Formats: sequence, structure tokens, C-alpha cells
Amino acid sequence: MTTTTDAQINGVDTATLFATIAAVRSQPELARFQFRVANRWVSGTHNRAVITGFYGAGQEHDHEHETVLDADHPAVLVGTDHGPTPAEYLLHALGACLMSGLGNIAAARGIALDEVTATVEGDIDLRGILGLDAEVRNGFEGIRVVFHVKGAAEAEKLAALVRQSQSRSAVYDVVTNGVPVSVDVATA
Amino acid sequence: MTTTTDAQINGVDTATLFATIAAVRSQPELARFQFRVANRWVSGTHNRAVITGFYGAGQEHDHEHETVLDADHPAVLVGTDHGPTPAEYLLHALGACLMSGLGNIAAARGIALDEVTATVEGDIDLRGILGLDAEVRNGFEGIRVVFHVKGAAEAEKLAALVRQSQSRSAVYDVVTNGVPVSVDVATA
Repeated sequence: MTTTTDAQINGVDTATLFATIAAVRSQPELARFQFRVANRWVSGTHNRAVITGFYGAGQEHDHEHETVLDADHPAVLVGTDHGPTPAEYLLHALGACLMSGLGNIAAARGIALDEVTATVEGDIDLRGILGLDAEVRNGFEGIRVVFHVKGAAEAEKLAALVRQSQSRSAVYDVVTNGVPVSVDVATA
Repeated sequence: MTTTTDAQINGVDTATLFATIAAVRSQPELARFQFRVANRWVSGTHNRAVITGFYGAGQEHDHEHETVLDADHPAVLVGTDHGPTPAEYLLHALGACLMSGLGNIAAARGIALDEVTATVEGDIDLRGILGLDAEVRNGFEGIRVVFHVKGAAEAEKLAALVRQSQSRSAVYDVVTNGVPVSVDVATA
């Protein structure tokens, strides 16, 4: 079992990580972030989003690379399947958030990871969004995430990484607890 | 103002759309879908997800194209910025779902769209996920979506497209109301 406390573990610079946390503790305004996405309709259910930058730690930032994301409905739902469905992007956001958190937490705890995978599955009854049954919700009925974690620690400590990530995940919080969303329209 | 009822409008085959809805009405089991994402840790906060297929309408389906999505934290958060943050993917899922729905609804109502864009912004105080303040939630405090809709109808009818999409969006439902999520771990 490896419990190295090297400054760099699992690709995480833990010295910088701890320094960042200390900086935010002393200057709480650095913790204010705003993330943004711009979406444009292409045709039918096909649309394209661009992610370029964000605000945080007191200033604007550009991402290293701009990301373009196509979303669509599949043919079976009368779409053109030019990309994943929005619902799949939601599942991805959840899995990715838990995974990114786990990477940081393992490094902070000095646990070297060998391989970590996660599957995310969401069940949905489309009678909701099709307006066919008022008793059926629009969204997923439930989501299941299953992690497989291999690393230099006992099973119990590896499992604890997932639990800690879950307890500190931005997307897990939003998806399980909900968040206020305002939707405005300009037609000019 | 155009209120054509052509079978194909805005890239949506409305005849097939209505036939699909009728089919699901008569066979509710066709409405059962399961969406899936597989994620793999790469290094640090960088991870990669693959979306290949889903279950729905009584059978397994492959997407037309496999989609690979990298997620990471930015440098200012001690990541390597190999892709958008998970929180940005969540915002994208929300914007895309409202946009896909709007495309279908406009077609169903015979309203030709010229241009539709949406911005999605989410505010987050990272003292939550950094564990620095128990009063601060992990996720977004609030999300704002702003649509700009241009099309062949009065402003009121264009705005109503957004309202209807909001009332039938899978991701909007999940993000505003929450959903049960189970997280299991296998360390074998």
C-alpha cells in the first residue's frame, strides 16, 4: 500500500491544491465562479453549444481550448442523432463531477490510483415529456452510478474516496437537490 | 406570419413525430428508455466519457456516432483544462434540452424558426466543494437561461415556445426538482 505524500500524485499538484484552498479560506471572494454555455439551434432537435470561458478567482478566464458540443434526439425519437441527447449530457456531467472529485481527494489522501471507471445509467419514461400521462414526471425516475476503483489502498479506503467525492460534488448536489432556474425570453 | 403545416418544418418530420406520439399512447411500454454513459479516470481531475447507445422503444439502439467527452478542472482550480468542467456540462445539458424541445414544439405548432440562441449561466461559490463553509452548498446557487427567438410568429407565440419547452423538458425537471441518485462502489 502506497501512501506517499509527494507533491505530485495521480497527476494532481497537491501543494498547489492545498495552497489554493488556503488562499480561498483567507479571501472568500475568490470562491465566486460563474460558468457559461452558449447554445444555438441548428435544425429540428439538433443544436450546438460552445464553451469558451468563465469567471472565477476574481477575474475572467479563457479555457485552454474552446469546446463545441452537438446535442440532438436519436432517430427513434424523430431526431437526426447528430450528438448525444441532452439527458445523456446530464448523466455525463454527474459521472465526470464525481470522477474529478475522486481524483483530487485520492491525491490529497496520498492514495495512488491505478484505474477508476464509472457507469451512469438513467431510467426515464417518455410519457412525461410527450405529454401522455400527467402522473409521469418529465425527467429521470432515478439514476444509478457504479464506480470501479483500483488503487494502492484497502478496499474500504478506496470506497471512501467515492463517498467523499459524493459529499463534495457540485453536480451531485444539483441533480439530487435541485436548483432555482430562471428562463427568460427575448423575441426582439 | 407562416403557419404552414407541411410534414417537414424546421427540420422536424411532424407526421412521424405525431405518429410516434400516437404509437406510445397505445403502447406505453415503448416509452421506457435508459440512457448510459461510461466514464474513465485519466489523470488528476481529467476524465473521459463515452456515449455509445441506449435502450428505448423496446430495444437497444446504437447512436449514429460514438461521442467521446473529456472533462477536467481548469488551471485556476489546479486541473489541466483538458475539457469543460462537469458543471459546464450540466449547464449545457439544460440549454440543449430546452432547445431541442423548442425545435419540436415549433414544428408541431407550424411555426418556422429563423434563429434561436440561448445563454446559460450558473453561479457557484466554491467554498462549498472546498469544504470551507458548511453554510455554502456544493452546487450552483442559481442558473439563468436567456433565449433569443426569431421566427415567423408574433413575439407572444415565440415566447410561448420556450414556456412549453420548459414545461416538458427532462433536464429542466431534473435540475429544478432533483432526482434520486444511487452511487455504488466495487473495489475488487
